[in-house]
Amino acid sequence: MAVNKIDLNSDVGESFGNYTLGLDEKVIPLISSANIACGFHAGDPTVMKHTLAIAREHGVAAGAHPGFPDLMGFGRRKMDASLDEIKDYVTYQIGALQAFAAAQGMTLQHVKPHGALYNMATVDMEIWDAVAEVIAAVDSRIILFVMAGPWRQDLEAIGKRHGIRIAFEFFGDRAYNPDGTLVSRKLPGAVVHDHEQVAEKVLKMVNAGKVVCVDGTEIELAAETICVHGDNPAALELVKNIRQSLTKEGIEIASPATFL
Amino acid sequence: MAVNKIDLNSDVGESFGNYTLGLDEKVIPLISSANIACGFHAGDPTVMKHTLAIAREHGVAAGAHPGFPDLMGFGRRKMDASLDEIKDYVTYQIGALQAFAAAQGMTLQHVKPHGALYNMATVDMEIWDAVAEVIAAVDSRIILFVMAGPWRQDLEAIGKRHGIRIAFEFFGDRAYNPDGTLVSRKLPGAVVHDHEQVAEKVLKMVNAGKVVCVDGTEIELAAETICVHGDNPAALELVKNIRQSLTKEGIEIASPATFL
Amino acid sequence: MAVNKIDLNSDVGESFGNYTLGLDEKVIPLISSANIACGFHAGDPTVMKHTLAIAREHGVAAGAHPGFPDLMGFGRRKMDASLDEIKDYVTYQIGALQAFAAAQGMTLQHVKPHGALYNMATVDMEIWDAVAEVIAAVDSRIILFVMAGPWRQDLEAIGKRHGIRIAFEFFGDRAYNPDGTLVSRKLPGAVVHDHEQVAEKVLKMVNAGKVVCVDGTEIELAAETICVHGDNPAALELVKNIRQSLTKEGIEIASPATFL
Amino acid sequence: MAVNKIDLNSDVGESFGNYTLGLDEKVIPLISSANIACGFHAGDPTVMKHTLAIAREHGVAAGAHPGFPDLMGFGRRKMDASLDEIKDYVTYQIGALQAFAAAQGMTLQHVKPHGALYNMATVDMEIWDAVAEVIAAVDSRIILFVMAGPWRQDLEAIGKRHGIRIAFEFFGDRAYNPDGTLVSRKLPGAVVHDHEQVAEKVLKMVNAGKVVCVDGTEIELAAETICVHGDNPAALELVKNIRQSLTKEGIEIASPATFL
Repeated sequence: MAVNKIDLNSDVGESFGNYTLGLDEKVIPLISSANIACGFHAGDPTVMKHTLAIAREHGVAAGAHPGFPDLMGFGRRKMDASLDEIKDYVTYQIGALQAFAAAQGMTLQHVKPHGALYNMATVDMEIWDAVAEVIAAVDSRIILFVMAGPWRQDLEAIGKRHGIRIAFEFFGDRAYNPDGTLVSRKLPGAVVHDHEQVAEKVLKMVNAGKVVCVDGTEIELAAETICVHGDNPAALELVKNIRQSLTKEGIEIASPATFL
Repeated sequence: MAVNKIDLNSDVGESFGNYTLGLDEKVIPLISSANIACGFHAGDPTVMKHTLAIAREHGVAAGAHPGFPDLMGFGRRKMDASLDEIKDYVTYQIGALQAFAAAQGMTLQHVKPHGALYNMATVDMEIWDAVAEVIAAVDSRIILFVMAGPWRQDLEAIGKRHGIRIAFEFFGDRAYNPDGTLVSRKLPGAVVHDHEQVAEKVLKMVNAGKVVCVDGTEIELAAETICVHGDNPAALELVKNIRQSLTKEGIEIASPATFL
Repeated sequence: MAVNKIDLNSDVGESFGNYTLGLDEKVIPLISSANIACGFHAGDPTVMKHTLAIAREHGVAAGAHPGFPDLMGFGRRKMDASLDEIKDYVTYQIGALQAFAAAQGMTLQHVKPHGALYNMATVDMEIWDAVAEVIAAVDSRIILFVMAGPWRQDLEAIGKRHGIRIAFEFFGDRAYNPDGTLVSRKLPGAVVHDHEQVAEKVLKMVNAGKVVCVDGTEIELAAETICVHGDNPAALELVKNIRQSLTKEGIEIASPATFL
Repeated sequence: MAVNKIDLNSDVGESFGNYTLGLDEKVIPLISSANIACGFHAGDPTVMKHTLAIAREHGVAAGAHPGFPDLMGFGRRKMDASLDEIKDYVTYQIGALQAFAAAQGMTLQHVKPHGALYNMATVDMEIWDAVAEVIAAVDSRIILFVMAGPWRQDLEAIGKRHGIRIAFEFFGDRAYNPDGTLVSRKLPGAVVHDHEQVAEKVLKMVNAGKVVCVDGTEIELAAETICVHGDNPAALELVKNIRQSLTKEGIEIASPATFL
């Protein structure tokens, strides 16, 4: 699927109390969708409010980035939570962010699960279904961000069943397996560090709906949003580079609520 | 102020994870407003959802009961939090509960701060003002529950300034000082244990807008809601007794959203 | 292995802040080893101190009962923590309890991991090894409580390698599979409710070193400690019943430090 | 009191999970006593272990830096905890760190309360007494770090009563009031930024046992340890500068266990 609009999303609002993480003020102006941590794996009430204000200032769409209640592990550790617990955790976190958004005259555009919750969902469709159910119940205008891959139709079916929109996410800086999954970070070459290569992958996905896998094969991969990072100055350079590549090709960077 | 309607409110939803606290299923049918803990001093996402469901089943109005982030101290310990921090904590907790309410087709009727936050507010008008500001920003239909007393006009002014409704709360089982404050729990006679005495105090307040203080003097005290408890079987008996006394006098027990 | 001494252990000290759980004051006098929660999945500093005092008063050996940092899930949910993280969590919790013990002139007899950590260890020998390594480093006089089963020799080897003692634990109120694992709680008959049957199982294990499995087959099962519960009055009755059966047969209830 | 030995202490081990705070690897080699956070206001089990290892590597004495259970507020907010709660929190945190120390063949030299707990103690001698009582009960070889000032004799009496050593602490980069308290951070001039001025203050205190207050008056102020910081490169420069000034004067930087 070739689109002339694409979204750039980044995890932000991950500071906590006295701890600062990420260059939010610098990366938010470069993206179109901000995934804001909601206090379980990162973020706190004050950070949530400030992060929304930065997004608002730059006209960037805001979304909830709910995670497991595991601040010590930054929500990166799988937890044997039940589907009901997951639904309750996601409801809670979306609501907490919604209140800050409402207080600033904003609404949430999307929800993107964080870390282990996202990873668990990618191999367990029931979790995507659970999160979709929560969104439909809380505010069906909210878009669910999920991982792009050959399972696209299954997830679109989930979206239809719950009456919500789904945006598929592409990882420009990650190597793909031929089955559409990401190459494990434990393996060499999992992360693409070369900026030109990343830009090339992003353009191929946006223009041709395809990705070249780690073994050289090419697979179909349609996505509406690209995951980028704002952890450090090098990451910011990469985002700028991706933006330039896209703009040069006439592709507009826009939040999915404007084109889905 | 004599009213023919009065609200009965109780703190509920204070269980957490594997820990059960309070007889929510038994006290909620006896009250008209449920103050639901929001996960900071008590309560967790699953408990919040269940407690809202019980309130919904019995047609009891639901409200947020936000507290300090101090689970170990049950939100009963004063914390030197700034007004901004308090606003952020209250926003977060209201929002979290709102999402569960929305998912069940409910809206929140009120906000009643918990424990140390409530106590700090009673001696620092700026805290009431901060909470009122939050409510106005998040959802101005929400009623703020505050402590009744000679400071009524000041709090009404805060409500007007922020465009929200205020409900004043009376403690039928507590002794009052002539200045309208509660007799410290550290002093003898602070808590009224006799059920007949409590009923008498409640009726006097409802019918005549007055309370007899610990020193025998009588002061004006108008309130729209009465705090009751559901911690144990004896507490439930007291609530039933209060209900009977009110009903016998032709006073209707109703949530403040219906008469404020 | 027939012994004329056997230990009874129970999880205690699981209250937290305003939340009370378990009948510690009643069950502790009935057991010989108290597994005291250390503040991660349950327990708090004040509860730890009080629970040690109860154990001390009744001459009951005290041990640490470390769990995952998951208060909301009571440490019952598997977490994808690394072996290093597990070692650090166990070290931390043992130390915290040791300080309270030292302040009361006590030392810790044992460590028994809690909930998901215990369950994960039973299927991953590396976790037992990690906990053994921690004990050896912190205080090699501490005994490690592990699940009894056909894997006994492997665990004894771990104990030898680290220079610590191991006590094997038997579950008198649970049905066993022929491979020595417990029948899943999701299956019918997993928990034995009949007091006579429990007593019979306990006596067979103590006297003959054998257990009759759920399918009727008999397997060897040697253990030095039996897990009992103090959650409710019925559980206390069961403990009393087990004690009587043992005493009647001339078997002494004693903490493993006295006979291992 | 002029000494020819002085201690430099710094708060370290304040990282948490995915959050890094402070330049521990750089500041620890410059100090003689490391105050290690213990997981309540900052620090986590893994960080504690690593921080002890750094101290061990550089032969720097390690101590516990216990704080309030307020990670979100970094232990900087006063909490209305009871003396018993404070004792329990301090016991717990000391013990947790002791276990990591034991595992590395180390013992704790000292305890320095953190943030709000330290500040509350400076105006409430009962808190110092409570902490001293804990130390005496847990390990009476541990030195208590307290704020230097005209109250020296009272604190020495507390130390004697509990049979523990007290080390008094001086803040070289803070302005003093004539009553020995620090000028509030809310007032101008509270923090001395000029490196030469700080060095001068430090030398005057070490050599003459005196400090020039914010109003120009000079008061007696004896201390055995000086608080320094490792938050940022500028702070490190200041520590190096203080070290140089001291060394140039022939004053040895040494942990208090070596000279108290």
